[in-house]
Parts: sequence; C-alpha cells; structure tokens
Amino acid sequence: MLPPFWFLSYLEREGSFVVKPIIDDLIKLLGKDNVLTTREDLICHSFDATADMPSELPDVVVTPHTKEQIVEIVKLANKYMTPIYTRGSGTNLSGGTIPINKGIVLSMLNLNKILEIDAENLTATVQPGLVIQRLNDAVAPYGLMYPPDPGTVTTATMGGSVAECSGGLRGLKYGVTKHYIMGLEVVMADGSVVRVGGKTVKNVTGYDLTKLFVGSEGTLGIITEITAKLIPAPEYRKTMMAVFSDLDKAANTIRDIIGNKVIPATLEILDNVTIRTVENFMKIGLPVQAEAILLIEVDGIKEVVLKEAEIVEEICKKNGADEIKVAQTDAERDGLWTARRAALPALAQVKPTTVLEDATVPRSKIPDMIKALREIAKKYNLTIGTFGHAGDGNLHPTILTNAEDKEEMERVHKAVDEIFEVALKLGGTLSGEHGIGMAKAKYLEWEFGKAGLEVMRKIKEALDPNYLLNPGKIVGRG
Amino acid sequence: MLPPFWFLSYLEREGSFVVKPIIDDLIKLLGKDNVLTTREDLICHSFDATADMPSELPDVVVTPHTKEQIVEIVKLANKYMTPIYTRGSGTNLSGGTIPINKGIVLSMLNLNKILEIDAENLTATVQPGLVIQRLNDAVAPYGLMYPPDPGTVTTATMGGSVAECSGGLRGLKYGVTKHYIMGLEVVMADGSVVRVGGKTVKNVTGYDLTKLFVGSEGTLGIITEITAKLIPAPEYRKTMMAVFSDLDKAANTIRDIIGNKVIPATLEILDNVTIRTVENFMKIGLPVQAEAILLIEVDGIKEVVLKEAEIVEEICKKNGADEIKVAQTDAERDGLWTARRAALPALAQVKPTTVLEDATVPRSKIPDMIKALREIAKKYNLTIGTFGHAGDGNLHPTILTNAEDKEEMERVHKAVDEIFEVALKLGGTLSGEHGIGMAKAKYLEWEFGKAGLEVMRKIKEALDPNYLLNPGKIVGRG
Repeated sequence: MLPPFWFLSYLEREGSFVVKPIIDDLIKLLGKDNVLTTREDLICHSFDATADMPSELPDVVVTPHTKEQIVEIVKLANKYMTPIYTRGSGTNLSGGTIPINKGIVLSMLNLNKILEIDAENLTATVQPGLVIQRLNDAVAPYGLMYPPDPGTVTTATMGGSVAECSGGLRGLKYGVTKHYIMGLEVVMADGSVVRVGGKTVKNVTGYDLTKLFVGSEGTLGIITEITAKLIPAPEYRKTMMAVFSDLDKAANTIRDIIGNKVIPATLEILDNVTIRTVENFMKIGLPVQAEAILLIEVDGIKEVVLKEAEIVEEICKKNGADEIKVAQTDAERDGLWTARRAALPALAQVKPTTVLEDATVPRSKIPDMIKALREIAKKYNLTIGTFGHAGDGNLHPTILTNAEDKEEMERVHKAVDEIFEVALKLGGTLSGEHGIGMAKAKYLEWEFGKAGLEVMRKIKEALDPNYLLNPGKIVGRG
Repeated sequence: MLPPFWFLSYLEREGSFVVKPIIDDLIKLLGKDNVLTTREDLICHSFDATADMPSELPDVVVTPHTKEQIVEIVKLANKYMTPIYTRGSGTNLSGGTIPINKGIVLSMLNLNKILEIDAENLTATVQPGLVIQRLNDAVAPYGLMYPPDPGTVTTATMGGSVAECSGGLRGLKYGVTKHYIMGLEVVMADGSVVRVGGKTVKNVTGYDLTKLFVGSEGTLGIITEITAKLIPAPEYRKTMMAVFSDLDKAANTIRDIIGNKVIPATLEILDNVTIRTVENFMKIGLPVQAEAILLIEVDGIKEVVLKEAEIVEEICKKNGADEIKVAQTDAERDGLWTARRAALPALAQVKPTTVLEDATVPRSKIPDMIKALREIAKKYNLTIGTFGHAGDGNLHPTILTNAEDKEEMERVHKAVDEIFEVALKLGGTLSGEHGIGMAKAKYLEWEFGKAGLEVMRKIKEALDPNYLLNPGKIVGRG
C-alpha cells in the first residue's frame, strides 16, 4: 500500500507547492546546466520508444556527472517525496522510462566512461551511460566481446540494457544481459550505496542481488557502475538463408539443428507477412510466396564452423527447403542479413503505429505460436507480421495499426491480450527481452498468480517503501 | 528485528509447551512413518558436512512425499511459530542445514522423481530430492548433460545444490548451478505456492525470482520443483598434468591459457602441501618437490579439442613446466585425476579436523592468494594445504587441525579471519561455491557493508517476517 503522505505530496506537487523548491535545490546541487526545465526538454523526456503508451511531462530533468550527485538527488527525492525515473537513451519497448507520476527524470548520459578493461580476468567495468557498442569497440582490440546485442546496440546504454535485461539476436548461443553482469554498484531508494557481485566467476556470498537488480527496470535501485563479463570473440562465422514453403518444415529444421547439437549464434525467422512487406519496401528479390525464411549464423573456431555449417545445410535440405543461400563473402553475408535488418523498419512504414510485442514460448512451440498469431490476425482483422529469434522461442509479432483509429486500436488491444494468453498457455512468458514496464504490468498476474505478484511487491516495498523509484513499472503503482 | 512473539514461542518450545502438539499434528498429516522423533533420527539430522560448527538436535524430522504436504507443514510451522530447516543429503560445507534454533527438519529425500526430460527444449524438470548424478544418468542417453558438478555429485540432491548454488570443477567453462536453473516452484513462508521462470531461454517478466531463490539456502522459500537447462554433452576430451617448480610459472600458465582464448572445462591446481600429502597417502609417484601441479582438461568437438590441447601443452612448456603428461587413454586420464580426487581425503586423514574454505579471488590474483595463504600458515603455525579451481579463482585452502585442541583452534579461527580479509582485499569474495550458511554469516558485512547487509535483511524479512525458514543462515538470526 502507498503510504498516505505520498499521495499528499503528489497532490501538493500537482499544485506546484513542491516543484519550485526541489528545482532550486537541484540547481544548487548540480548547477543550472544540469537541471533542465524548458518545455522542449521536458517533452523529450516524456516518452520512450514504446508505441501506444500514455506520456507525461516530468517536472524536471537532471543530468548529473557523479555517483555522489546521484546520492544527493535521491536524498532530495526523499525530502520532497518526489519520484525518480532513471533513464539512458530511452530505447526500451515497455514504457519503462515514462515519468507517469511526474517528478525527476534522471538522465545517466553524462556517466559514460569505461572505467577499466581487465583482459586477464575477462571483465570490463563501465558507467551506466556508456553506449553498448562503445564497449564492444573498446574490447575488440583485445580479441574480446560483450555478447548481448539488442537491436539498439548503437544507441542504447549499458545502464538501460542492464535495467531492462536486454536480449538480442545472439541469445540462443550466448544468453542475454543477465548472463554477463558480474557486479553492480547501486544507489538505493534511501540514498545508501551498495556494491554487489564482483569480478569472480564464482560467487555465492549471500543473496544474488546482482541478478535481482538486472531487469528490475530502475524500480529497486539506481545502477551507477557495472562490471561485465567478456568472452573471446569468435574467429570465424558462416551465414546462410533457407526458404520454406511450409511453416512446419521451417519449425522441424529449427528442431533438428538443435537436436543435432549445433547451437547457432543466431537463428532467426521471418514469416510471410514480413517477407512480403520487406520485399515491397526493399526490392531485394525475396520469395514473396514463401511461408518462412530462416537466417542462420554459426560462429566459433573455423574448423568447427565449417563442419556445423555443413550439418545445418544438410538439415535444411532434408526438411525440404526450397532454396538455401550460403554467404561466401562478407558482402554476401551483409546481403543475407538485409532482410532481417529491414524487418522492423519495413513493417513500421506500412502504417503509422507499430505495436511490437515479444511474447516468448519454449522453442518447440514456435509453430503453434505462429499459427495462433495468424488466427488472431484473422479474428481481429489486423495485419500482424512476425519475425524474431526462433532459436530461443522469442518472437516479435508486430501489429501494424494507427493509434488515431480508436476502433482499430480496440481490436489491437484485444489481439494483444490474446497473444499473451496463448503464449502463457504454450508454457511461455510475457516478455522474452523487452521487459514489463508499464506496457505489460497488467498481465503480470496471469503469469505469476496473486501469490507470485505478492512476492514481487513485497521485495519492491522492502527496498523502496515510498515507491520513489520509477513508479508505475512492473509492480510499482502509477 | 525479530517480532517478540517469536521469542515467546521459542521459550515456550524450550519448555516443551509446543513440541508435543506439533508432533501430534504432523503425525496426523504425514502418518507415523514420516515423522521421526527417536534420538538416533534427531542426531542424524543435527549436523551436516561442515567442520567446526555447533550442532543442535531438532524437535522432529519429517519426510513428506508431496508438495501439498509441505504446504501443510509450513502452515503448522506458522501455527506454532516453529522454524523449518529444509534439507537434502546435508553435504553442504557452510553449516547450511544445522537446526540451530530447534524445530522441524524437513527432509526432501522422498521427493526424488524426474518429472520430465524435454530433449527438444533442452530442459529437465525434477523434484528437489533427486541426487544430481541420477539426472545426468537419465539425460546421457539423449546425448545431453547437466553441467554443475560439485564434488558430492553422487550424494548431493538437486534441491540442496540449487539452495546452495553449488559450483564444482567445470565452473570455468560451464558456469555454476545458477546458470542452469530456469524455473522453480517454491512454497513461501506463508504457505503460498509460486512458480517462477520456466522453459523459455529468454525471460524478463518481472524480477528474476528464480535467481534470487538459487543460493538463498532455504531462507526465502522451500523449493519443490526445479526446471534445469541441459546442454549437448561434449563428444571428446583431453586431459593433461603439468608440474611446476615455481608458483609464478604455474600462474603465468593459467593466465596465458585463457589469454590464448582456450577455456578449459577444468583447470585445477594443487600446491606443495597438498602434493606431498597426497603422495604420502597414495604413493602414486607425484613430484614432492614441485611447488604446483596443474590439471587441465579441454572438451568439446574432437578437432577443436586436439587443437586446444596442443596450444595448452605449448603454453605449459613455454612457461617452464618441469614435466607434462598428456593422457592417451581413459585409464591414463583416470590416473591423472587421482591426485586431484585424493586431495581432500588425503588432507583429511592427516589430522582429526579439516577446515575447508572456499575464498575466491579474480583469476589473476591466484599467485597473490596462494602466497598469502603460505604466510598465514607460517604466522599461525598451521598446516594449510591449498587446491582448487584455479581457472575460476576458487581456491580451497584446507586447514588441518584438531577441534579438541582449543589453543590450536583459536589460531585456526584467526587464520580463517585473515584468509577472508586477504581474499576481499584482492577483490575476491567470501564464498565461491560453498555458501554462507552459519559458517560465514559473521563475515558478510566485511564484503557488503552495513548497507548491503541491510538490503539482504530487508528481502529476508519481506518474504519471511518471522524467520521461520532456516533461521541462523546468511542474514537469519540464530
């Protein structure tokens, strides 16, 4: 339950009792340049990359440069009982950074340093505002890589991707963000600073708070430092595309590849709607009659990659692929990836609004899920293009619609409800990689039941009893 | 803070106000055969594999067969405010299962079924009382394996190893238990049942409760079902032993192997004390003058393994190994592993009491740690043999002593304090794989500070406000 004084403060703040003094205090703390209050600045921080979400202007945006400043900001938030929304680049797809209860948007973009690359222990320690790609650029000369690769890798920050536990195309073989976060420094809701985890590969000292903070979407603490695990970069890769006239054949191919103990770095699928849309957009000669295209990349040591690529090609043939293209050069590889990379932009240009979901099912249930998505599209008379990470069961059904069309949006909302219902029925989960945020908070009880939700709420209230940190997200009240 | 009624209940129980009625209720629930109260039974459940720990007789031991019975046991524990200690085989090394406040020992050994092997999704779902090795035996025909391999793999249960987050010899390449637990069913302290995680490779739906329960040592909930990730078993392996007259040479070898992007499945070290003790015990021709022996095993696809084995051999030579033995047959492989397998039993027979620690440091700090251990042994006039998982920085300094010798035990306790002090100073952690339990609870603040400890305590009290679940462990009050 929200404590009553929080509401009081909220009402006071609405009436501007609080906004002026907190802004004065923030300016005293950070200097005028780091306290943004113009309407333009507030609008820019009122939304994120998520479609079909309410937006709200924050009272103020702050851009601190140090952890010590963040501690003081948290103390001010406590003093004025004003919420804080920590934010990187705002590329998330769950409404995870929307300042729905007004208050302070805390931009981490000035804390963007690489603090250490420890090649011997295979770790890097960075500040949360660092863009993911910059970490990979910095460790590449050591022959190392940081595997998590959300689509927004060139704009999203490390802090944002840790808070959301980003996935990406390499999840099947390499796992997701949580598998690479070894240690964190976190400012708690009361302004205390804790360090959890560290540089040791093995660590069972107390509760695994590191993994609890990863994916907690800024609702349990503010991440101020990240120690990430690196791995040796693969020396070689082989990419191929296989075209199928039948969804089941594609599904059997996925099953047989993994059944033959080949774990590709990426194993992506595009369905017919996506194929037709991409072809219409790009004119790259995709087979518009195909029911599914699989894009498969194996990587590692050259000898192994060549052997695995052969196995994969054979499995595609055996399962009746109509066409298999194996890239022989880097240029050909880029060509094959064009279709996948164009999937979202191509779908997004068809209609004004793109509702991108990430319902996820056990790998073996992918054909059932794709068939169910087709039926849902038909039932609600909607266009749904589906693409995504078939290898790990993480699909992206993408509804092409128009937020202005109230009647259609009603059908969209019903379709989304049904997508999650089916995913859960198939043993899946609400979100494979986008997170819960505001977008899926209402579905959470479907997956966890009242008891499970209560466990999450108890943890939230134990660590942030006044709901100051990113309210309205996951179990936070908006 | 403990609520006052808990103390009241405790005092009442001491005076046997409570013991009789709870036993009657338990017999009603489970039948006489599943409620053990003889002195022999109580003694058998009063300790675990940890040396130098207090032991305490529980009031009663129960051996339920179903989750529903466990829910009812928890309700009784609430009714009588009596603690519950969930227990598998009791092989842990942290005092994690000692019924220090009396109450109910809940043995999970009757819940020992494999519920499902899902080869297509690479998962297995099991009950917590299943012995780890039995899972591996069952999945081997599918060409799969469950990688976590604590030394006690043939006796420890899945539930115990999940609760303690066991490590083992394959941690460097394959990770530890937490990396393989995808979903759990848990009975909470209030008797509610929650299911967290599931079979999807990607899952970011709400807080990662699965990882929070793994390693929580039975203090946050009672695990009643486990969904584990399986991986294709490696088809080939190559094992070698390298002998070094100088610790730094061995350390440089470890650094160079990983620097050359070879990640062995196991990379173990034995120090001079351990080598001499094993040789004295086994007479297998170990070089008793050597400062360190490295045991290295690479596994995977045959072509790669052969290539990696060559690289490792060359690195050992380059770093001045006095002798390198490469196993050519399975029998030779077993021969090489004899020394490592004999390390603990050999050390354990020297003196009546074996204090086995698992302080862990970043890999690059292993030489510093081993040197510090030598100095500590000298300073306190103790025999410390060190062996362990050099590849992941997880060492096992083993103090050979006698619990009856009060004066020596005082020196042992000071030495242990200093071992943890050094490990933390080197950027390490209190426990790499044994857990905190009772044994290291007093050191927890050294690693996390007051603020970090407070975060753990808040989570504990949010989920188990009456400290009914395994009190006295981690942040629980004993």
